[in-house]
Amino acid sequence: MEKTDKKVIKKRLEEIGKEIVEQAKSKKVPYIRVPSRTTNNIVFDPKSLCYVIGDKTITRSAGNIRHVKPLAQMLKVASFCKELVEEELKHETKRGLYYISESWGEKLKFDEQPESDNIIEDIEAIIGEPREDFHIIPNPGGAVYGDLTLKFKNPSGKMMKINCLQTADGQTIGPRMSEAEIAECNAKRVIAIETSGMYNRFMEENAHKKFNAILVNLEGQATRATRRLIKRLNEIKKLPVYIFTDGDPWGLHIAMVIMAGSAKSAHINKMLATPSAKWIGVTASDIKKYKLRSDKLKDVDIKRIKELKKDPRYKSDKRLLEELKIWEEIKKKAEQQALLKYGLRYVVDEYFPAKLKEMEKK
Amino acid sequence: MEKTDKKVIKKRLEEIGKEIVEQAKSKKVPYIRVPSRTTNNIVFDPKSLCYVIGDKTITRSAGNIRHVKPLAQMLKVASFCKELVEEELKHETKRGLYYISESWGEKLKFDEQPESDNIIEDIEAIIGEPREDFHIIPNPGGAVYGDLTLKFKNPSGKMMKINCLQTADGQTIGPRMSEAEIAECNAKRVIAIETSGMYNRFMEENAHKKFNAILVNLEGQATRATRRLIKRLNEIKKLPVYIFTDGDPWGLHIAMVIMAGSAKSAHINKMLATPSAKWIGVTASDIKKYKLRSDKLKDVDIKRIKELKKDPRYKSDKRLLEELKIWEEIKKKAEQQALLKYGLRYVVDEYFPAKLKEMEKK
Repeated sequence: MEKTDKKVIKKRLEEIGKEIVEQAKSKKVPYIRVPSRTTNNIVFDPKSLCYVIGDKTITRSAGNIRHVKPLAQMLKVASFCKELVEEELKHETKRGLYYISESWGEKLKFDEQPESDNIIEDIEAIIGEPREDFHIIPNPGGAVYGDLTLKFKNPSGKMMKINCLQTADGQTIGPRMSEAEIAECNAKRVIAIETSGMYNRFMEENAHKKFNAILVNLEGQATRATRRLIKRLNEIKKLPVYIFTDGDPWGLHIAMVIMAGSAKSAHINKMLATPSAKWIGVTASDIKKYKLRSDKLKDVDIKRIKELKKDPRYKSDKRLLEELKIWEEIKKKAEQQALLKYGLRYVVDEYFPAKLKEMEKK
Repeated sequence: MEKTDKKVIKKRLEEIGKEIVEQAKSKKVPYIRVPSRTTNNIVFDPKSLCYVIGDKTITRSAGNIRHVKPLAQMLKVASFCKELVEEELKHETKRGLYYISESWGEKLKFDEQPESDNIIEDIEAIIGEPREDFHIIPNPGGAVYGDLTLKFKNPSGKMMKINCLQTADGQTIGPRMSEAEIAECNAKRVIAIETSGMYNRFMEENAHKKFNAILVNLEGQATRATRRLIKRLNEIKKLPVYIFTDGDPWGLHIAMVIMAGSAKSAHINKMLATPSAKWIGVTASDIKKYKLRSDKLKDVDIKRIKELKKDPRYKSDKRLLEELKIWEEIKKKAEQQALLKYGLRYVVDEYFPAKLKEMEKK
């Protein structure tokens, strides 16, 4: 997934407005066709293992009084984003955009943030690129550590190169990190870890050297910026991705969102998901095999397992379905740090190599 | 606050055990005196503006059947931490320690994490140093950007220097960052920012150059690691600290915890708090003056204001009390990003310089 050229992005944003102008010139009632993002246009694509959107579109027409305002707002947002892309060094958040709209006057300003969020997602669907590419950025989150050199322009416009071993605790994954050019990468795989505690354990046991890996701290559910970076390492550098989470259905689903995206962002999943990523564990089988300290599954956990079993993303993976069944049988969950009962080194010296071997056989 | 030498920390940990051994040798029933951390021993210290603990102690005696297990566990934890300090490069989290205790056998293992957390806090109180110093680390969180060079040993034991401008989105503040030696610092102040969106705005508007500042992304409530780093920059490098939050009682309290710590950690507040730090805003007055888009205060916000007005940390600061009163009058709150209504540059070009001038006059 090499990044789409900024000139192309700019052109696509411009085209949204140009179409309206052309229609008006030829005395047509101006309208925009937007790929529909409602449930009845979201389908599961077995090939990419993602939810994607289908062919249905909706039309926003200046002939419909209820459409006039959002149509005008979309043009204004597209124009604002075009300016950001032209300025090159500036980005804003969705929340920021909502506040900026106040300066657009009473007729164009957004009354509630869901209105502006909706337009951002429409633009993503129209131009087929994630909002990062038109400089509407998600929050930073997570960190990366390993032999990876990234190239980017700093806020003053100076081209910089940084190596992700030149850091004490990791480089924060924010808008510039997730979109940076991958200048050099000597690692052979990516290991993404759910908790900060285990990420620190991996750093301190030199797992990045032992497994020749880039370590990613997910800090729970992976942020969008982190998912982008993981996907880019996977696609551009062909690095296999392994995800290590707590041993419960929520941990497994953290892995699934990295692998297949979420139903909510069907229009953009293909740009964010890494279908070849593999969930290492802690599996339900691991809880039994390693006799991990565990807690009883709560009703809400059991309910979650039942939901996941019906989810097409799980149905297509025998191993995951099997693990969901084992959870239902043993009715227990365990955190990844439970492996520390065998000492500080065990997880990197024994558990992970064994799991890696098992996964690489498949 | 130069860091206490590791040898001193090691000695203090050893002394906990040595005392017990001496008592046993001289046929006394062994006991440990621990500074009491209960409410009736927490007092407000007007000088440091912190809650601190008083002189009361509790005694854990081997002569009391209910004390035997926690007494033995404390010795085991102190011994484990001593090993971490000796190993130099390894750290664990409180959660990790709880799991590690499983390998100590049925008699010593912790049944619930609050038990091990409690012992960690007792050891902090006994030796008068925060747990970071005996390698029980908090979660990472927040990021730092600016002309600051830190020196530390990386996980392989190699001494490294990093500059916090050599990063795309900031250096993550984790265990090595917060405790690193401050090798060089050319900045004149610290600006700590509540939200990632505003932190990015400050970076992109080159606020670090304009104000000759180190920018800190708090990402909401400041983590303990972030508070340590801020305090160390303030004490060692004498940098004034300015805190910029959302304009509501919760934002103000984020600033207060940086300034004065929390009641819960009275035994260690003096090691974490920065009493000279100043809250820049968004103040209640700012909401009026800058006509910011605002939301109505909810019942829970109003309740919070009433609590804060009674809090001794606020009672001693006329300006803060005044702002709490204005909030009660206007019954409105505003986010820091609301300042974007005046354009992307305004907050760094106009708002912040005006506020800084106002604060530096006082």
